[in-house]
Amino acid sequence: MNNDAPNFRGLKALFINCSIKKDKSKSHTQLLIDKTVSIMAAQGVEVEQLYALDHRIAFGMIKDGADEGLDDDCPMIQQKVMEADILVIGTPIWLGVKSSIATQVIERLYAYSGDTNEKGQYLYYGKVGGCVITGNEDGIKHCAMDILYALQHIGYTIPPQADCGWIGEAGPGPSYGDTEWKGEKLPAPAGLDNDFTNRNATFMGWNLMHAAKMLKDNDGFPAVGNTGADWQHVTNAKSENPEYR
Amino acid sequence: MNNDAPNFRGLKALFINCSIKKDKSKSHTQLLIDKTVSIMAAQGVEVEQLYALDHRIAFGMIKDGADEGLDDDCPMIQQKVMEADILVIGTPIWLGVKSSIATQVIERLYAYSGDTNEKGQYLYYGKVGGCVITGNEDGIKHCAMDILYALQHIGYTIPPQADCGWIGEAGPGPSYGDTEWKGEKLPAPAGLDNDFTNRNATFMGWNLMHAAKMLKDNDGFPAVGNTGADWQHVTNAKSENPEYR
Amino acid sequence: MNNDAPNFRGLKALFINCSIKKDKSKSHTQLLIDKTVSIMAAQGVEVEQLYALDHRIAFGMIKDGADEGLDDDCPMIQQKVMEADILVIGTPIWLGVKSSIATQVIERLYAYSGDTNEKGQYLYYGKVGGCVITGNEDGIKHCAMDILYALQHIGYTIPPQADCGWIGEAGPGPSYGDTEWKGEKLPAPAGLDNDFTNRNATFMGWNLMHAAKMLKDNDGFPAVGNTGADWQHVTNAKSENPEYR
Amino acid sequence: MNNDAPNFRGLKALFINCSIKKDKSKSHTQLLIDKTVSIMAAQGVEVEQLYALDHRIAFGMIKDGADEGLDDDCPMIQQKVMEADILVIGTPIWLGVKSSIATQVIERLYAYSGDTNEKGQYLYYGKVGGCVITGNEDGIKHCAMDILYALQHIGYTIPPQADCGWIGEAGPGPSYGDTEWKGEKLPAPAGLDNDFTNRNATFMGWNLMHAAKMLKDNDGFPAVGNTGADWQHVTNAKSENPEYR
Repeated sequence: MNNDAPNFRGLKALFINCSIKKDKSKSHTQLLIDKTVSIMAAQGVEVEQLYALDHRIAFGMIKDGADEGLDDDCPMIQQKVMEADILVIGTPIWLGVKSSIATQVIERLYAYSGDTNEKGQYLYYGKVGGCVITGNEDGIKHCAMDILYALQHIGYTIPPQADCGWIGEAGPGPSYGDTEWKGEKLPAPAGLDNDFTNRNATFMGWNLMHAAKMLKDNDGFPAVGNTGADWQHVTNAKSENPEYR
Repeated sequence: MNNDAPNFRGLKALFINCSIKKDKSKSHTQLLIDKTVSIMAAQGVEVEQLYALDHRIAFGMIKDGADEGLDDDCPMIQQKVMEADILVIGTPIWLGVKSSIATQVIERLYAYSGDTNEKGQYLYYGKVGGCVITGNEDGIKHCAMDILYALQHIGYTIPPQADCGWIGEAGPGPSYGDTEWKGEKLPAPAGLDNDFTNRNATFMGWNLMHAAKMLKDNDGFPAVGNTGADWQHVTNAKSENPEYR
Repeated sequence: MNNDAPNFRGLKALFINCSIKKDKSKSHTQLLIDKTVSIMAAQGVEVEQLYALDHRIAFGMIKDGADEGLDDDCPMIQQKVMEADILVIGTPIWLGVKSSIATQVIERLYAYSGDTNEKGQYLYYGKVGGCVITGNEDGIKHCAMDILYALQHIGYTIPPQADCGWIGEAGPGPSYGDTEWKGEKLPAPAGLDNDFTNRNATFMGWNLMHAAKMLKDNDGFPAVGNTGADWQHVTNAKSENPEYR
Repeated sequence: MNNDAPNFRGLKALFINCSIKKDKSKSHTQLLIDKTVSIMAAQGVEVEQLYALDHRIAFGMIKDGADEGLDDDCPMIQQKVMEADILVIGTPIWLGVKSSIATQVIERLYAYSGDTNEKGQYLYYGKVGGCVITGNEDGIKHCAMDILYALQHIGYTIPPQADCGWIGEAGPGPSYGDTEWKGEKLPAPAGLDNDFTNRNATFMGWNLMHAAKMLKDNDGFPAVGNTGADWQHVTNAKSENPEYR
């Protein structure tokens, strides 16, 4: 733990790995998730991880698949999401976009987003979000803009540089952490010593902690101007119908 | 001013309208910008507006076009950006994406993004960003994910629901605030009384103020884990080369 | 059937509805799919439809889930894809992006994309693709650019205006075809008489047929310059290492 | 020229380089454009190139800036666009998206898109489009989906694999063709020998030629089902108001 750092004890973080590999030991994204996890854990943050494909996640804009007779672990996942101050979505890149299971996990987060907290704000207000992306060729920023937009739209705060990722040069090639490619041993595991990726993972980890602590110390966002019940009383958006140009 | 609200005096906001209409009085986006401006102004925030096309903005990943013999107002714009705690980019939607001039304004913000503040963090740390989007048919979220991603990538914090916008039903139709369409007078100016748009404009305005105040009271982000000079000392991303699975 | 039209008999089209509603009778996207289907069927095209959620689709960049012990209908779906000259993906919009199951269907199409046809071209060469999008507020173009990009990337040809869709005005509202909203009966089912949507559905349907017929009459793309085995002999991309500026 | 290849003489192609570098000799994208140009030129296609920043392009959804008293070369550019069977947009990647000037060039193409050809179809019907993307780290696919979507939306046909590009590994690094990085000479110019990029440039070049020839031989798209005047007579989209589920 860094002694000059704020005290982050008491914060909780949840990482959801949305790899589409059935066997999680083969997920390359996991390796970069582990780096960001270790940054937070070293500062005393309580970190939990979920591997999405280990769970039964029902399709639908629904809160509980059981209501439709479906096996569904989402209510359990949602509880963990609600307990965490920090949520990080990890995804591989396929065809330049985030994975199907990442899309599904976000759909299910969205299904709860109409609920409100005790202040009357949307449920995820006061929490912070980030993302971890890996692929072998292209698309970190595109996946990140998609995921971070979704998170802020449902109430998360996005601190600066809240994404990190690794891709290789254009074209097929080793994935993150691969030690060989086309049968030949690589001089070093792919990407693990990439300074840019490591720096961004570090910036992301710390900024998520800084922002989560700031929000927690502040008891989240004041409930003025951002609740369904209240906004009409504190807006100038509705009060005047501007004379048209 | 709302009496239960935090005191936002001392905050500054800059709105940049990136319409591609030469004559700013014809910008539909301006009408929605004006709503969000009036929300902030009513709380005592000092708001400034720029209409991008009124200024000479040079192309290039450059800080000052004068260095290349180009007319360039960006150094002046950049000074306003640096003075503001809140930056809001307004853009129309064309073909589902943000405008060319919005793209150019963001390129020029990016050109300065390697600079650091007095703490050694990227220049825009401690500031908050949002966006205002209008079009006549489709693309609010796509434009917003693009703009908000860019802002967070260069150091801005994105509070919850930091975008607002208006579009009409699929297909050609009146633009925001239009009082007639195809020669016929509309019963009311298009979109101005859309509750969803007004609510989102309100949520955005207040959340930008809340987050800006929180960051200002906190003196921005602590400079631990997020500076070019420091990160290698406070990371676990680099310290270990995990034995490969 | 239109008598001035080319004869499209012999063409096959496959529509895959990627709604996330378990009960397909509740899919709004289906209504717009049905319109485009009827356009093609009226010209003698043999049209088949699949409702993705009716099938077991395994996660993974794999050809056959059975190889990993998973229930997987994809080999059967892939056979239908290969038999069809035209593929249309239908999806609802959630949070501005295509559905999770649409993402998964495309991942599985991608898993086969390294295979080649009898000419040595990628598998989907000679086929044409389009998409149908519905939502209640925003994102037709964003979903379409994602889906159409994926299809052309794996070998499909995209004719002009190969997407159609419907969304309502910004904010919550009736979905495509809804006859009531918030308990009140609507004057007409939402969107069904939208000229823009109907026109685009028509343009898409006909352009897919025109392009499919043109490609079929031409026996697909000539296998020059676009096969893994051949390209190095017919390129000037590799032959010279241009002296650097 | 390849003897087994179709005869492409008589085809015209236009490449527009949308670099934001004032000095075109410094454009990295130009190097990859030159490769694709040489592929087409070797087959007898008449190729013309424009460097967008060499021209005065007015902002606005307008056909001729002169109408608003602006310097504007777009009418001249548009004439070249109309003479060409093939249009390729080249762009660098900045912050994960296409350049501002690429966005502007596409806005201006769009401004003409309501015009019709002699058959009553949108203006660009019968032409084919592609794109060339370079950057030093990330975003080929995202830029390509944006550009290719825009082109197909206004009437271009997109053949298979109609994009090519080069990026390096995640993080700052040499740009395409750079011979040194951070003051050190590289063993070879960056990316020029990347097989994946060269293959894609080749596939794109040939597929654009194949599709352009096929469309030209076919006299473009038959004007059935895709004109503003005609569609209502050949659609089943409008004819029935399906009884609601």
